Amino acid sequence: MKCDFHMHTIFSDGKVWPTTRVDEAWRTGLDAIAITDHVESQHHKGDVSTNRNRSFEIAEPQGRLFDVLVIRGAEITKKLPPGHLNAIFLTDANPVEKPDFRQAIKAAIDQKAFVFWNHPSHEHPQKKSEWFPEHTELYEKGWMHGIEVVNGMTYYPEAHAWCLEKKLTMMCNSDIHEPLTLYGEGKPGDHRPMTLVLVKEKTPEALKEALFARRTLVYMGNMLIGEEPYLRPIYEASVSPVRSGLTLKGKDRALLQIRNRSEISFELEAVGEPAEVSAPKSLTLHRERVSLCEVRAKAPGQTGTKKLSLPYVVKNLLIAPGKGLPVNVEFEAAFTP
Amino acid sequence: MKCDFHMHTIFSDGKVWPTTRVDEAWRTGLDAIAITDHVESQHHKGDVSTNRNRSFEIAEPQGRLFDVLVIRGAEITKKLPPGHLNAIFLTDANPVEKPDFRQAIKAAIDQKAFVFWNHPSHEHPQKKSEWFPEHTELYEKGWMHGIEVVNGMTYYPEAHAWCLEKKLTMMCNSDIHEPLTLYGEGKPGDHRPMTLVLVKEKTPEALKEALFARRTLVYMGNMLIGEEPYLRPIYEASVSPVRSGLTLKGKDRALLQIRNRSEISFELEAVGEPAEVSAPKSLTLHRERVSLCEVRAKAPGQTGTKKLSLPYVVKNLLIAPGKGLPVNVEFEAAFTP
Amino acid sequence: MKCDFHMHTIFSDGKVWPTTRVDEAWRTGLDAIAITDHVESQHHKGDVSTNRNRSFEIAEPQGRLFDVLVIRGAEITKKLPPGHLNAIFLTDANPVEKPDFRQAIKAAIDQKAFVFWNHPSHEHPQKKSEWFPEHTELYEKGWMHGIEVVNGMTYYPEAHAWCLEKKLTMMCNSDIHEPLTLYGEGKPGDHRPMTLVLVKEKTPEALKEALFARRTLVYMGNMLIGEEPYLRPIYEASVSPVRSGLTLKGKDRALLQIRNRSEISFELEAVGEPAEVSAPKSLTLHRERVSLCEVRAKAPGQTGTKKLSLPYVVKNLLIAPGKGLPVNVEFEAAFTP
Amino acid sequence: MKCDFHMHTIFSDGKVWPTTRVDEAWRTGLDAIAITDHVESQHHKGDVSTNRNRSFEIAEPQGRLFDVLVIRGAEITKKLPPGHLNAIFLTDANPVEKPDFRQAIKAAIDQKAFVFWNHPSHEHPQKKSEWFPEHTELYEKGWMHGIEVVNGMTYYPEAHAWCLEKKLTMMCNSDIHEPLTLYGEGKPGDHRPMTLVLVKEKTPEALKEALFARRTLVYMGNMLIGEEPYLRPIYEASVSPVRSGLTLKGKDRALLQIRNRSEISFELEAVGEPAEVSAPKSLTLHRERVSLCEVRAKAPGQTGTKKLSLPYVVKNLLIAPGKGLPVNVEFEAAFTP
Repeated sequence: MKCDFHMHTIFSDGKVWPTTRVDEAWRTGLDAIAITDHVESQHHKGDVSTNRNRSFEIAEPQGRLFDVLVIRGAEITKKLPPGHLNAIFLTDANPVEKPDFRQAIKAAIDQKAFVFWNHPSHEHPQKKSEWFPEHTELYEKGWMHGIEVVNGMTYYPEAHAWCLEKKLTMMCNSDIHEPLTLYGEGKPGDHRPMTLVLVKEKTPEALKEALFARRTLVYMGNMLIGEEPYLRPIYEASVSPVRSGLTLKGKDRALLQIRNRSEISFELEAVGEPAEVSAPKSLTLHRERVSLCEVRAKAPGQTGTKKLSLPYVVKNLLIAPGKGLPVNVEFEAAFTP
Repeated sequence: MKCDFHMHTIFSDGKVWPTTRVDEAWRTGLDAIAITDHVESQHHKGDVSTNRNRSFEIAEPQGRLFDVLVIRGAEITKKLPPGHLNAIFLTDANPVEKPDFRQAIKAAIDQKAFVFWNHPSHEHPQKKSEWFPEHTELYEKGWMHGIEVVNGMTYYPEAHAWCLEKKLTMMCNSDIHEPLTLYGEGKPGDHRPMTLVLVKEKTPEALKEALFARRTLVYMGNMLIGEEPYLRPIYEASVSPVRSGLTLKGKDRALLQIRNRSEISFELEAVGEPAEVSAPKSLTLHRERVSLCEVRAKAPGQTGTKKLSLPYVVKNLLIAPGKGLPVNVEFEAAFTP
Repeated sequence: MKCDFHMHTIFSDGKVWPTTRVDEAWRTGLDAIAITDHVESQHHKGDVSTNRNRSFEIAEPQGRLFDVLVIRGAEITKKLPPGHLNAIFLTDANPVEKPDFRQAIKAAIDQKAFVFWNHPSHEHPQKKSEWFPEHTELYEKGWMHGIEVVNGMTYYPEAHAWCLEKKLTMMCNSDIHEPLTLYGEGKPGDHRPMTLVLVKEKTPEALKEALFARRTLVYMGNMLIGEEPYLRPIYEASVSPVRSGLTLKGKDRALLQIRNRSEISFELEAVGEPAEVSAPKSLTLHRERVSLCEVRAKAPGQTGTKKLSLPYVVKNLLIAPGKGLPVNVEFEAAFTP
Repeated sequence: MKCDFHMHTIFSDGKVWPTTRVDEAWRTGLDAIAITDHVESQHHKGDVSTNRNRSFEIAEPQGRLFDVLVIRGAEITKKLPPGHLNAIFLTDANPVEKPDFRQAIKAAIDQKAFVFWNHPSHEHPQKKSEWFPEHTELYEKGWMHGIEVVNGMTYYPEAHAWCLEKKLTMMCNSDIHEPLTLYGEGKPGDHRPMTLVLVKEKTPEALKEALFARRTLVYMGNMLIGEEPYLRPIYEASVSPVRSGLTLKGKDRALLQIRNRSEISFELEAVGEPAEVSAPKSLTLHRERVSLCEVRAKAPGQTGTKKLSLPYVVKNLLIAPGKGLPVNVEFEAAFTP
C-alpha cells in the first residue's frame, strides 16, 4: 500500500478543504492517507471550526467513494524537545489537545494510536537531528513507534540510523500544506514522497498491524530506503537480462541487455570486476526500459563458455545511510577469438 | 492587464483558502482577480464563517505583497432567469445577500458595482444560451454591464453576438473551484482562461473604468476574441517577415520566413490568391518562432519585381462568432526564369 | 515482436547512414527492421555506391551488436498500377532491379521473398486506394502477400478491408526517410508506427513464417488493428477491475475502478445499458493507470446482489474498418436503499 | 548570429546527408553553419565519394532555400600536438588534405581561412588541455585564430583562459556526428551548443570579419561565456524590475519583482549586503518570467526613502574561468514603522 501519513487542511494551517486531500491521493495512486491537522494552534479562529475531528469527518466519505483509506490523525505540535509528533489511528482527536506533551501523547496512546516523530531536525538551533532525553523517555515507555526518515523533500540520515538501531518504523510523508501540484519537474518517474507499507490486505487493521511490525519502505524521488529483506525482492522482481548469454569476440565490445520493469531507475556502481572481462564502473538501469551494459574480454585469446558475475551496489536502494544494496549482474559468456 | 473575475474559495463551495487564489494568480501571471463566493448558499455552515467579506479580507493583504490587485466581489446565485450574475468592485458583500434577484442586484448597483451575467446557458433545460425578458429588464435599467463569453473551457457564441450587438463588455473567467493545476496538457502556450483589460495604469480605478468602457479581450486556449480595433494591433505587433524580399526562380519553391513573437500560434486560412503565385491554403504561424510559407510562381516565365499580398483570415482571432480577423502576408517577389 | 519493414537510407533517397536505422530501432524498442531502399532510382549517383545490398551489409553487424534483427529488403518502385511494393527476406537485392514490374517481382519471388503493396493510394490521381487488374494478377499468382494498412501517419481503410477479405497480411510501417525524431508530440504513449508480429521465437525464420501466416497487428498512435482472435486476448490481459464488487446506495453515485496495464488508452463507447443501472456513454481506460466508471442505480428501491455487465465497444481496437472490439465491463452490484 | 562551426556528415564519419545539417540548423534557429568533414580519414571509401567539397556543395543550395548561411569548412585531423583544427571560409577543401599538419594548415591559410583548435584535451594521455610548442608555433605565425572553449557538452577552462590571455576567438560548437535529437531533456531552455557572433549584417563577409575581430560569445546550456563588454549589455537588456519602489514595513517581508526577458535563467550569488536590509544569499531570475526577491529591513525603526543596491555576481555569465559578471539589483526603499 502506498501511503502518506502527514498532511494539513484549512482546519489547521493548510490551504485546502479535506476532500481535496482525498482527490489528490486518488490522482497520485495512494491507497491510504492520514490528515494530521495541528491540534493546538488555531490558525483561522473565528473563520473555521475548532473541532479537531472535522477534517477527518469531512474527508472520510470521499475516501469511501474513491476507495482511499482515510485514517484519523493529529499532529501534536510541541517545542523541541520532543518537537512535533503525529498520532494516527485515533478514535477522537479532541482529547489530544493538551498543553503538556506527555499528557497529549498519553491521550493518543490511550486510544492505541501509532505515534511517530516528525522531521527530526525541525526548529533545532543548529538545524541538525538530535536525540534528546525526552526521546529516550518516550521510546522507553513505548510511546514512540516510528520516525520520519523523509519529510517532504528532506532525508534525515540520523533518523534512518536510529530506526535501524532502535527498531523503529521508517516513515516517509509529504507534510503538505498547499494544494498538491507536482513534485519534481513533471518528468516520468516524479511522484510525491510516500511510505510503502507491506500489508496482506487493504484494511485499516492490516495497515496498523504492518506499521507496528515495521514493514515499511521509504519512497522518495528515485530512492527507495528500507531493510535488505524488503528491498532485495523488489530489485529481483524488477530486473532481468533480455538474454542470458553473450558472445565475446576478441576484444570487441558486446552489449548485455538488461530490462528494468520497475518505475525506479537503478543506479549501479561497480565494487569489483571479474578477471575475465571489463565492465562499466557505473551503470544506470533505466525505468521501464532495456538498458545496455558494455562488456569486453580483457585478453583476446580466451575460449570456452563461463558463467560470470559482475558485482555492483545499487546506490539508490539504501539498506543503511550511505550503503546501497549489493547485487550481481550475471550472464554466460561465450569467448571466441 | 491579465484578469480573472470569477473564482471560489472555501467561503462558499470552493476548495482552497483565499490566499491560495492570490498565489495561483501570481504564478500564472495575472494582474488582478476578483474572488466571487456565492452570497446565498452556505455550503459549509457550522464549519466556516458566514461573513461574505472574509474571502476578500483574507486575500487582500496577500495581494498587496505579491502586487496582484484583489477586487471585492460576490456571485448572486439565482435560478434562470436571470441565472447567476457576478458583482465586482463592491464595498460590502453582505448586503448583496437578498432572496430576490432584483433586490440583490440593486444592492450591488447601489455600491456602483460592475455586474455581468455568468455562463449564460448554465441550468438551461436545453443547455442553450437564451436571452429572457429578465435580461432585457436588467439591461435596460443599466444593471448588467457584461456577459461571460467564456467560462472555464466553454465558449458561448450567443453571448459573443449579444456583446457586439448590445455593447456589453466581453468577459472570460475561470470560475475555478478546485486548486488550480494545469489547464490543457502542460504544453507551452497552455494558460488559464482570462480577460485581458486594456488599461492605462495598474490601479483598481483604471481597471473599473476600462471594464465599463468595454476595452476587453477574451483569451482562452489558443484563441483571442475581441473587437477588430483591439485585435489588429496585437497581430501586427506580433507578426513580421524575417526578410521582406523573396526570389522566385522558375517554378521552384521558395520559402517566406515569418516571425511570430507572441505566445499565440496564429492559424491562417487563405481567402484568395494573387494571380502571380501559389501559396498555402492554410498556414500556422507558430508561437515565439519563425514559420515557413512556401510560395511558387504560377507561370515559369515571369520576370521583374512585384509587391505581392496574400490574403488570409486568422481563424483564432475572432472579431465575431465564426469570423476571423482578415490580414495580408506581404512581400516583394523578384521573378527570375 | 515489434517491427518496421519499410525505411530508407542514403543508399536511396533517405538521409541517414544504415547503422543509424539500427540505433533508432533499438532506442524505440523494435525487435526487427527491414531497410528497403529503392532499387531503381539512383538519387545520389556519383556520390554513393549503386550496390543495392550495401545498406543491409552495413546495418547487419550493428543489428547483431544491439540484438535487432536486420532483414534484407528492397522497394520495387513502379508507376501505379501496381505502384510500389516491398520485397523482404531477399538474399540479393541487385537482381531485383528490373525495368518491368513483373520481372522485378519475379526476381524477388524467386528468392522466396515476402512481398507487400505499399501506401496503396500513393500517386493515385484521385488520391484514393484503388485495386487494379494488375493487383488481381499479382494476387492470383501468389506474388503479393500483404498490404500496408498504415504507412507513416496514414491509415488506409480500403487496404484494411482487402486484407480481411482476401486473407492478406496487414502491415504497418514508418517509410521513414529523415532521421527519426519524435512521432506525435513527445507525450507518454507516443511511438513510431509498427507491425506487431506474433512469433514463437526471435529468429528471422520464425518472423517469416508468422508474416506468411498473417499473424500481425497494426499499431499506430493509440490504435491497434487486427483480427478479433488476436485483439481480444490483448484487451483481456490489460484490463481488470480493482475490486469486483460495488455497493449502490439509493441513487448515489458509485465509482467502479478499472485498471489498464497496457500502454494504450482504450476508448470505450456504450452499446446498451442494463435495466438496473446507468453508466457512462463513453469511457476512457487510461494507459498504465486506474480509471473511474461512475455507476448509479436507476431506481432507488432495489436490494440484493446482482452480477451486471455493461456492454461497450473499444473504438481504438479495430476488428474491421469502423468496427471496434465488443467487450463487457462486469461487476457485482450490491444494492442498498 | 547563432552559429555552429563544427559538424560532420556521411562524407566523413557522420551519419546524415549534408542537407539534413541545414534542416537541423533551421529547426534550432541557427543563422550559419560550417560542415567540417575530416579531410584525411576516408571512413566510407568505396561507398561514398572522396571529393572533400561534396558536403558543402550539397548543403549550400538547401541553405539558400532556408536562409541559413553554409560556410565551406574542413577538419584537419592530426595527432596531438597540435591535434584537430578546423579551417572555415575555405574556397576549396581538397588541397587541405596533406599528411603534414603544417602543410595542411598552410593550404587553409593560403585560402584566407579562419582556423581554430578543436576540443583541446582530446586524445591527451592525461585528458587535460595542454599548450604545446606546436601551438606556440601556429599562434606566432598567425595560423591559429581561435579555440573551442566548448565542444559538445564539455567546457575547457584552460581554453577559456588562453583565449582571454592571447586574444584568441572563443568558439562553441556541437561537433555533431549523429542526427540532432535533443540536447538536455527537452525542457524549455534546452538548446544545442552554439557560438553567438556579433555582426552588423547576415552575410559571410560580416561573419568572417566578426570572427577575426573576436566578437563572439559561447552559449552552452544555461551558461553564457564571453568578455564583460559583450555580456553586460545582454544582462541589462534582459533584466528589469517590475516596479522600482518597495515599501518596507517594520521587519515584514517585502517582495521585489524582477522580470527576466531572456531565455537564460540567471543564477545570482550575493557578494555583500547593504546596511539597511537583508536579501537572499542566492537568487534565480527565471527565464521569460518575473521572479521574487524577498527583502526585509534589518532594524524595524527605520523611516524615509533610500536608493538601495544589492551586489551580486551572475554565476552563469562567465567573464573568466570561475568568475561571474558583477551586477547590482537596485530599488528605492520606503521604510515605514
